[in-house]
Amino acid sequence: MSDAYQQLVQHISEIGQLESVEAILDWDQETYMPPKGLHARAEQLSLLARMIHDRRADAAIGDLLNQVNGAAGDPVRETNVRETRRIYDRAVKVPSNLVGRIARVSTHAKSAWVEARRDNKFSHFAPHLKELIELKRELADYVGFENERYDALLDEFEPGAKTAEVATTFEHLREALRPFVAELKDAPRRPDQSILTRHYPQDKQVAFSRMLSKAIGFCFDSGRIDVSTHPFCSGTTPCDVRLTTRYDEQFFSMAIFGTLHETGHGLYEQGLGTEHMFTPMGYATSLGIHESQSRLWENIVGRSHAFWEHFYGDAQGMFPDALSKVPLDDFVGAINSVQPSLIRVEADEVTYNLHIILRFEMERALLDGKLDVNDVPAAWNSKMEELLGIQPETDTVGCLQDIHWSMGTFGYFPTYALGNLYASQFYAAAEKAIPDLTDRIRNGDFATLLEWLRSNIHRHGQRYRAADLVKVVTGEPLSDAPFLSYLRAKFSPIYGLG
Amino acid sequence: MSDAYQQLVQHISEIGQLESVEAILDWDQETYMPPKGLHARAEQLSLLARMIHDRRADAAIGDLLNQVNGAAGDPVRETNVRETRRIYDRAVKVPSNLVGRIARVSTHAKSAWVEARRDNKFSHFAPHLKELIELKRELADYVGFENERYDALLDEFEPGAKTAEVATTFEHLREALRPFVAELKDAPRRPDQSILTRHYPQDKQVAFSRMLSKAIGFCFDSGRIDVSTHPFCSGTTPCDVRLTTRYDEQFFSMAIFGTLHETGHGLYEQGLGTEHMFTPMGYATSLGIHESQSRLWENIVGRSHAFWEHFYGDAQGMFPDALSKVPLDDFVGAINSVQPSLIRVEADEVTYNLHIILRFEMERALLDGKLDVNDVPAAWNSKMEELLGIQPETDTVGCLQDIHWSMGTFGYFPTYALGNLYASQFYAAAEKAIPDLTDRIRNGDFATLLEWLRSNIHRHGQRYRAADLVKVVTGEPLSDAPFLSYLRAKFSPIYGLG
Repeated sequence: MSDAYQQLVQHISEIGQLESVEAILDWDQETYMPPKGLHARAEQLSLLARMIHDRRADAAIGDLLNQVNGAAGDPVRETNVRETRRIYDRAVKVPSNLVGRIARVSTHAKSAWVEARRDNKFSHFAPHLKELIELKRELADYVGFENERYDALLDEFEPGAKTAEVATTFEHLREALRPFVAELKDAPRRPDQSILTRHYPQDKQVAFSRMLSKAIGFCFDSGRIDVSTHPFCSGTTPCDVRLTTRYDEQFFSMAIFGTLHETGHGLYEQGLGTEHMFTPMGYATSLGIHESQSRLWENIVGRSHAFWEHFYGDAQGMFPDALSKVPLDDFVGAINSVQPSLIRVEADEVTYNLHIILRFEMERALLDGKLDVNDVPAAWNSKMEELLGIQPETDTVGCLQDIHWSMGTFGYFPTYALGNLYASQFYAAAEKAIPDLTDRIRNGDFATLLEWLRSNIHRHGQRYRAADLVKVVTGEPLSDAPFLSYLRAKFSPIYGLG
Repeated sequence: MSDAYQQLVQHISEIGQLESVEAILDWDQETYMPPKGLHARAEQLSLLARMIHDRRADAAIGDLLNQVNGAAGDPVRETNVRETRRIYDRAVKVPSNLVGRIARVSTHAKSAWVEARRDNKFSHFAPHLKELIELKRELADYVGFENERYDALLDEFEPGAKTAEVATTFEHLREALRPFVAELKDAPRRPDQSILTRHYPQDKQVAFSRMLSKAIGFCFDSGRIDVSTHPFCSGTTPCDVRLTTRYDEQFFSMAIFGTLHETGHGLYEQGLGTEHMFTPMGYATSLGIHESQSRLWENIVGRSHAFWEHFYGDAQGMFPDALSKVPLDDFVGAINSVQPSLIRVEADEVTYNLHIILRFEMERALLDGKLDVNDVPAAWNSKMEELLGIQPETDTVGCLQDIHWSMGTFGYFPTYALGNLYASQFYAAAEKAIPDLTDRIRNGDFATLLEWLRSNIHRHGQRYRAADLVKVVTGEPLSDAPFLSYLRAKFSPIYGLG
């Protein structure tokens, strides 16, 4: 019995190693690869995707799973067996050839997207998007689903989640958010955002954002920060976590909060158990939980008054021209302005989820065949009007703004909004467990919170599915109540609400 | 028939793709990987090495080779079949497990070497070296050899070369070089090297070396230059060639000639046929030929009077404090100083090959069991005395100076000296074909020479073995005569020899 389990671990570890190689190639493509390297990179990634797929679907894994199945075991073993079975069951249904095609088409779609965005030409990207959606529909048909194709895609990023349940959660959230946005719009007070668009020299931004990343716990011996067009965190292993960010000298928030966001992801990755490296127990449990960690550090901690009580002096020292005459409260107001806007990644905490709901609804319709690819720009604009009351003037700042579709990732966006909800639930639980948490943050002690996150969330790896983890940690199922009361508590004093 | 060949190409292309992935991981390890990423990197590289090996030895390749064997064909096809058979015949003899062990031990040996060098402690590296040599002896025994184990290792880097023949070449070369070194030592004139150790600001070195690299033809859309401890060129594909270099603000030559050297390698890689990418026709034919390209650009072109007639004005403009008062002839003399020295990579053109002969003799003795690993430092020092008349004070600048042994590469060093000989033979042929070559260089026209190298050497890929290529290009077999007469012609005016 133990032998079969050991063999299974050996098998799945090699798959994990290949996935980590894939992650390095992806990271390299976004950071340092010379432009003409693209064609060969597409071939390399396609080959790796096929090899990973073939190993996941290897009959030897099926045999080993049957041998270890009855074994009562420790949680590590149970987790590894359960998750391996999940991956195996999914993989055996999908032809290797389809996986390779998706990988190759995505690599080319990504560069078409870059050009389409640069030239504001959706038509340049449309055929690639069409091909990817067809491939993803094909994939969903192979994988199988209970109610709708989207279930099969969502499950890849948020295992166990169901489209219909997510839709219900989002409807509730949307009905709560829209009146709140309106209330803020008519609020008696408005923070002055303009201080954030003063001149912030890039070298100072680099130094300041790295300092913040280190202060909240990111280990630079086990990770690094580079520059890319679209920031991301690539956790190849807990000992090699690569964040990227981007800089705008005329905008304080992009690099600073972008880095805090990616650092939140990176802390989760660095907190996974190295003893479980390359096996399911050593991986993050879902993208929703991943996003809860990034949003927790970026927003709940990083945009809090207490956080800047600690760091504002440093910020003023680093950017004296921009900030030396700005009082702390004005600065905290500015970084917490609420304003319906076009770009998701720059959206504030209140309107952000409306951007996600838009994408979720469009993806669902594209997969169902209810929306044609050529109608994407029009549908996008009308939904923006409906949800946020504004419309983009170009597709570049509209339906072409996100990289995700070009990578063939559909079913991914909802995890961002779920992450926001989980983050508030987790933070409320952390506040109960650490009664002086705000004071600790005020004094620059981030280690206590990080340790709480590590032992309650990170170290569990995939032991609990997202829906179970939130119950284990908070005693409650997924809920938007903590998020909505967090918003009201935070924004009421800033906007002078009654 | 054609089907079998197409299938063979598909097979070997995938091996080529995996090798290119391996190259990216190696490059990443030397440039950007965070320090704690090492353990996982060792696992990734070991897995890749085993996978590549298993595919090389795949019985399916054997079957396909038998089916296409009789096919009369074009040179491309003949080359691909011949080289695939060579790789296959070698691979089937070697157990996959041994390949994985060598890869894993090398990764750890490399980091032990870094520490041993830092602390000047050979004993820290010795057990790793011992293990690697044992593994390589084992490898040689599996591969098989006619006369001595070293043949089996040399063949990996210089296919077709024989240890005994290399030894004869090196004996002849050594007997010609030693009196010439003595003659230069007692020469009436000596260039002043001290101008090279003035202050050369790093940012200017970066700009100047990139400018030179671009001027001689390196395409930055298909490649890049980064920093690493030990400079190298990693040609993952002709469209993605990664060079590294290193900077010393108190030494002009390190980055400038280091970059020219690696650019020479890079030009060969970028000149390979992209239509043959990932197949034998698309790869360099041997490391000796590779080194001929780097040494040709670094030394024969890059240290020539004509080259600096073109670039010296730029150099003076870039480094006015160091060079504005130095006449061109003094500068050309300085970059061509001959002086027995401890470090191979900093050695001049005349003494360089003596460093190689030392390593070749030691490697051969280590493999034969005539030299014990613990005696390496003493043997190194006594050979340095014998060949160059000097001895290192520490092992860090003695037997620990090179990275190669820590990577498990034995049989590699001789290719450096062979490269020097090939370079002079090729350059003499180029001079015949392009009678005004020196004038062209003087005028900054490097494209004519590069095009000659591309059509006579690069584009052939592995069509000709090194020994055959030199005959095809120059009409003569390998010889040290052009090298020795090049040295005399170049150094006589600088040293005022009769």
